[in-house]
Amino acid sequence: GSELLAKERAQSNLSVEQLSEFLHTKDVLQRQDAILKILKSEKAFDKSQNYFSGRETRFTNALARAKRLQQLAAKHGWTQDEYQVATELISEPGPYGLHASMFLITLRDQGTSEQHQLFLHKAERYEYIGCYAQTELGHGSNVRGLETTATWNAEDKTFTIHTPQLTAAKWWIGSLGRTANHAVVMAQLIIDGKSHGPHPFVVQIRDLRSHQPLENVHVGDIGPKFGYNTMDNGFLLFNRVKIPHANMLAKFSSVDPQSGKYIKPPSASLVYGTLTWVRSTIVLQSGGVLARGVTIAIRYCAVRRQFQDRDAKSLDAGENQVLNYTMVQVRLLPLLAATFALHFTGRGMMALYQENQKKMAGDVGKAGQPGRGPSPEELFPSTDLLADLHATSCGLKALASTTAAEGLEICRRACGGHGYSSFSGIGSWYADYLPTTTWEGDNYMLTQQVARYLLKSARAVLEGDTSDNDTTRILRTFLARRDMGAAFDVLGRDEDIVAAFAWRTSFLTFESLKHRDEDKNSWNNLLVDFWRLSTAHSQYLIVKNFYDALRSDTVSQELNQGTVVLMHKLFRLHALHTLEREASEFFSSAAVTVRQIQLARTKAVMNLLEEIRPHAVRLVDAWRFPDWQLDSSLGRYDGKVYEDLFHRASEMNPLNAITIDPYPGNDVLVKKDDRDAFKSKL
Amino acid sequence: GSELLAKERAQSNLSVEQLSEFLHTKDVLQRQDAILKILKSEKAFDKSQNYFSGRETRFTNALARAKRLQQLAAKHGWTQDEYQVATELISEPGPYGLHASMFLITLRDQGTSEQHQLFLHKAERYEYIGCYAQTELGHGSNVRGLETTATWNAEDKTFTIHTPQLTAAKWWIGSLGRTANHAVVMAQLIIDGKSHGPHPFVVQIRDLRSHQPLENVHVGDIGPKFGYNTMDNGFLLFNRVKIPHANMLAKFSSVDPQSGKYIKPPSASLVYGTLTWVRSTIVLQSGGVLARGVTIAIRYCAVRRQFQDRDAKSLDAGENQVLNYTMVQVRLLPLLAATFALHFTGRGMMALYQENQKKMAGDVGKAGQPGRGPSPEELFPSTDLLADLHATSCGLKALASTTAAEGLEICRRACGGHGYSSFSGIGSWYADYLPTTTWEGDNYMLTQQVARYLLKSARAVLEGDTSDNDTTRILRTFLARRDMGAAFDVLGRDEDIVAAFAWRTSFLTFESLKHRDEDKNSWNNLLVDFWRLSTAHSQYLIVKNFYDALRSDTVSQELNQGTVVLMHKLFRLHALHTLEREASEFFSSAAVTVRQIQLARTKAVMNLLEEIRPHAVRLVDAWRFPDWQLDSSLGRYDGKVYEDLFHRASEMNPLNAITIDPYPGNDVLVKKDDRDAFKSKL
Ligand SMILES: Cc1cc2nc3c(=O)[nH]c(=O)nc-3n(C[C@H](O)[C@H](O)[C@H](O)COP(=O)(O)OP(=O)(O)OC[C@H]3O[C@@H](n4cnc5c(N)ncnc54)[C@H](O)[C@@H]3O)c2cc1C
Ligand SMILES: Cc1cc2nc3c(=O)[nH]c(=O)nc-3n(C[C@H](O)[C@H](O)[C@H](O)COP(=O)(O)OP(=O)(O)OC[C@H]3O[C@@H](n4cnc5c(N)ncnc54)[C@H](O)[C@@H]3O)c2cc1C
Repeated sequence: GSELLAKERAQSNLSVEQLSEFLHTKDVLQRQDAILKILKSEKAFDKSQNYFSGRETRFTNALARAKRLQQLAAKHGWTQDEYQVATELISEPGPYGLHASMFLITLRDQGTSEQHQLFLHKAERYEYIGCYAQTELGHGSNVRGLETTATWNAEDKTFTIHTPQLTAAKWWIGSLGRTANHAVVMAQLIIDGKSHGPHPFVVQIRDLRSHQPLENVHVGDIGPKFGYNTMDNGFLLFNRVKIPHANMLAKFSSVDPQSGKYIKPPSASLVYGTLTWVRSTIVLQSGGVLARGVTIAIRYCAVRRQFQDRDAKSLDAGENQVLNYTMVQVRLLPLLAATFALHFTGRGMMALYQENQKKMAGDVGKAGQPGRGPSPEELFPSTDLLADLHATSCGLKALASTTAAEGLEICRRACGGHGYSSFSGIGSWYADYLPTTTWEGDNYMLTQQVARYLLKSARAVLEGDTSDNDTTRILRTFLARRDMGAAFDVLGRDEDIVAAFAWRTSFLTFESLKHRDEDKNSWNNLLVDFWRLSTAHSQYLIVKNFYDALRSDTVSQELNQGTVVLMHKLFRLHALHTLEREASEFFSSAAVTVRQIQLARTKAVMNLLEEIRPHAVRLVDAWRFPDWQLDSSLGRYDGKVYEDLFHRASEMNPLNAITIDPYPGNDVLVKKDDRDAFKSKL
Repeated sequence: GSELLAKERAQSNLSVEQLSEFLHTKDVLQRQDAILKILKSEKAFDKSQNYFSGRETRFTNALARAKRLQQLAAKHGWTQDEYQVATELISEPGPYGLHASMFLITLRDQGTSEQHQLFLHKAERYEYIGCYAQTELGHGSNVRGLETTATWNAEDKTFTIHTPQLTAAKWWIGSLGRTANHAVVMAQLIIDGKSHGPHPFVVQIRDLRSHQPLENVHVGDIGPKFGYNTMDNGFLLFNRVKIPHANMLAKFSSVDPQSGKYIKPPSASLVYGTLTWVRSTIVLQSGGVLARGVTIAIRYCAVRRQFQDRDAKSLDAGENQVLNYTMVQVRLLPLLAATFALHFTGRGMMALYQENQKKMAGDVGKAGQPGRGPSPEELFPSTDLLADLHATSCGLKALASTTAAEGLEICRRACGGHGYSSFSGIGSWYADYLPTTTWEGDNYMLTQQVARYLLKSARAVLEGDTSDNDTTRILRTFLARRDMGAAFDVLGRDEDIVAAFAWRTSFLTFESLKHRDEDKNSWNNLLVDFWRLSTAHSQYLIVKNFYDALRSDTVSQELNQGTVVLMHKLFRLHALHTLEREASEFFSSAAVTVRQIQLARTKAVMNLLEEIRPHAVRLVDAWRFPDWQLDSSLGRYDGKVYEDLFHRASEMNPLNAITIDPYPGNDVLVKKDDRDAFKSKL
């Protein structure tokens, strides 16, 4: 294996260092190296039994790591970013996960300063450990439908939190099962018998000393899952639990304690901001998520040799690296291209988001909310740009996380039999990532929001609205040329590729608009159209972001000419491969001709595969995953694939410490159990 | 949940009993009921801790079940079929898996009668417990490349079995890790320094009493996997182990013990038969495999309600069953249709296979091999029909197992968050099934065999060959009309749908032929084309098999008119949904027009979804999976989804018996461990 990877690295002159600094910045890479050294030296973070352990052991180990990580963070004075780097290197969900994210964020953003005093500071010191309890057994996507109630008691100025029936049980709540002693509970606020919709309440659920559930609180872990088993997702039921008035997070809405009157939030859609931010983060991470699988698969497929090339000249040629087979290339190299496409898109989105944040911060005063900083909630989705950003984040979250999740499984399968071993390192990573397609908006459902926005934009454009953002621009361009048609030179000019994707989005938008407004189709009847439309639009956005990134000054300044040329090839591979996969929509919108598609498929894509192939290993090297992070026999930097598989199987595997009796007539199962000796040897 | 499923069942008049008897036969269903009763009453088969246990416990439990099953089979005198039914109800791979299949089959089919005496009879009595050791660390697909050697020693008439280097270690071998005491080892037969390729040898690997590895044998379990963890896939290395001459399975090839001369098999491709049979079995099972996921998802999506319909008249309408959303329907109902398509195709293949077996049996005498029964090996792939059957089985194995595996994940995801819980029952089933896409021929690689056959057939047809089978027929039809074009009425006539699929296959075949023979493309360059071609051909075969089955006498005799009409709708949904997904190939081959595709997408498919929707629950009921088999909270027949999730989480989950200390400052992890008490309560 080692010589093969050395040969791979020798045959390309791509500057790995330059590209990885461009992707991550030098700073981040140095930080990563420093933190990696610390983690590796700590017994708690030893990964060698991860793939072997059962749920309970994995969970308690994860807890040990979570604790140790806090101690290290304190000791080394890590920033939030550094803590994040450590978490990524460890690469498993941990019991503090939801405390450190949603619990703290919600207290911070939705609590008043008195409430910060009451809850936030203790939470920051991990005296209060919390979770974000929104989803219930019966309701996830439909938040308005939540059934847990918080009823205002005027007489003693308290709320009663209650679970009226089984479907109202909180469910799936991360960090709740065994860890949290507090929860932010989303419950229907009821005053005088009238419901005002779901609001956040801080509820203590376990005793701070005994860690036993408080009276009338039924709480526990919801059991094993397809992945995410180092996390204690939990359930939570209340039997009329009273909490003080101060426990309703009151920055936006509140109940006046004297009058019992409900005080409305300044804008109904305040929450858009956070959601947009969370989704943008998912987009930003998706490239790296996928890159892990691609790194493993490409390295392994460069080491794996199987069969002689059928057309090989000499019989002595030896076996072919499977990465040389075009059928392997066509599965892996477009995914390699996608890692960059997603990375640039995530960056683009984040930049847009931050730009907006700044802009909004300026507007805050005008909107009559002086004195508050620009937290994500304080956005004004009524502005065009923000609505655009919101829709963009929905569509891209769906497409990016689906691409990453499904891409990981393609990587795993490309590794043949060994891909199925836990030691491949892809399976567990995939399984842990998978819920990203479901949470923060189920990927299918998000597409409705994108479609709604595009239809609205199209209506506005037709009515002569002049607001100017990318969406209205491409719709107008399409309208202007609709009766002339398009003649995009997708095989010759990169900008024509972008234009062809824009054309297809616009075509599908006006088609859907017709189905809705003229043909009066029901919303439900159009969901499939909407999903297609959102996918098309998001593909356009990714292609456009990739293209724009490559034309930016940063690229020409930070990357040498050879790398830029290679990046353009990756851009074309990504775009043309997508175009070809979605060929029918490109035909029927007349964005390209049948002949162009055929050429893209049989020539352009095949040529790009061949041109990119020699650089594949260096390209994944540039993602710079340390072996320790990948924890993969197949993806080792040094290519010692077989040695590592063998070592783990024969030296690390506790099952081999059991000698069984194999005969059906004998009811004895285990003749000899040497696991204790085995474990003490580890 | 219960009322909703009752309502579903009330709104359709499909005869579940009739359809399920048609799918399975009354006999099989009764047998299943009887065996289910026995299994349920046995403690060993209690499934309630399956999802919670770690690898070692799961494996020893699986061993207990495997033993008990043997005992029950003996006690009740179960036939092979009945044993199979029990295994399917238990639904987990077990430690005898490869013994009961490949080890026995290989001894039986490749051993002489003396060898049956020596090995087979003891193996049938489970005194010898074995496995089939072909794959090595370094070689799986490329069997010719195996590196384990079996060197003939003329002086003492023995073979030396040896593992010359690490990559020659046997790997992935089912039942080998902890269970087997014997192995059929595929090794390069070397006589006088000359290799004659891989041959099967019976090698004892563990002591029959102590069950310890024999001297110079290094054997063990290869470790945890993405699934299949109740099976002990193993590794095996030999340090010059001598075995007697009699241990080379000698029915086909052998070494003359006196002269040391190699005696060749009568036909080089004898093995085609078994492989064809194994692949046909995979096709036959794929419908049922997928149907499990579809059953769970459709029942759950009929119970799950989320949001009001946007266009609903009244605000009191209540929440919509998610199965009513077209975006859910378009994911699940085509898969429902596919379960039947695959089932009929599997049946068709098996019938063809058996017909051929009979025919070949008649031919055996002529071919000069008197006295041997028609075992799968004794096929003559030179005959047209057999070559066709072989190619068909390759293409369909690939497409059917990919469809089933990927379909299961679509089902899981359609269940939203709860699909991610182990209690959904889909995840583990999917994970265990996944290797089917890799073994018995990696699905991507198999497509080369299909393409090779189609190219050969096309050449023959062009050269005026008159042999008559379905493939040559469709190729000739295409040639005859090539310059006239086609005008298939795919939306109006079912037979035109079949013809359009045939047309597309033929078009792609001649296109590939041109690329290979005229343009002189390298084989490697065409792999992607070949994969497309094979997929297209296999889709045609499925559509055709489904269509033919519906026109058969059995259907009109055994199913009432309403059911037949519904089956035709499922046929159309399957075919048109496939056509629309693969639209670009249908366009470019001019099999259909852009307008037809658009209509298929926006009208025909949507209408079919609506028409089939009311029967969805009854259709999955007809597959007749007992709840015990599904082991799924979401797929329960009675719809008590939430009750079951809650019960499992709060009553059966051992993690809840652990009380942790959650504070980072305290290194204590577990404050209280009540697992022993918990387990004794179970
Ligand atoms: C590992 C994991 C961790 C989680 N952590 C947390 C947490 O910490 N806190 C928390 O509060 N929640 C958490 N969740 C819950 C998560 O947010 C929800 O599962 C998610 O929002 C999906 O909602 P659902 O399960 O209700 O799906 P459903 O809405 O029930 O979806 C079921 C199906 O119906 C479809 N569907 C539903 N409505 C429509 C519609 N209107 N139109 C078309 N199709 C529709 C969906 O596409 C899907 O296929 C977690 C979930 C998981 C899996
Ligand atoms: C759960 C499980 C159980 C198993 N049980 C057994 C058992 O009991 N006994 C046994 O002997 N084996 C067993 N196997 C091994 C199994 O048969 C092999 O894994 C399988 O044949 C695939 O071979 P491979 O792993 O060598 O894949 P490889 O051939 O290494 O494939 C790697 C990649 O290269 C591609 N590729 C390889 N060659 C070509 C080519 N010529 N053209 C184009 N692409 C190519 C493949 O498509 C794949 O993407 C088992 C495997 C698993 C996962």
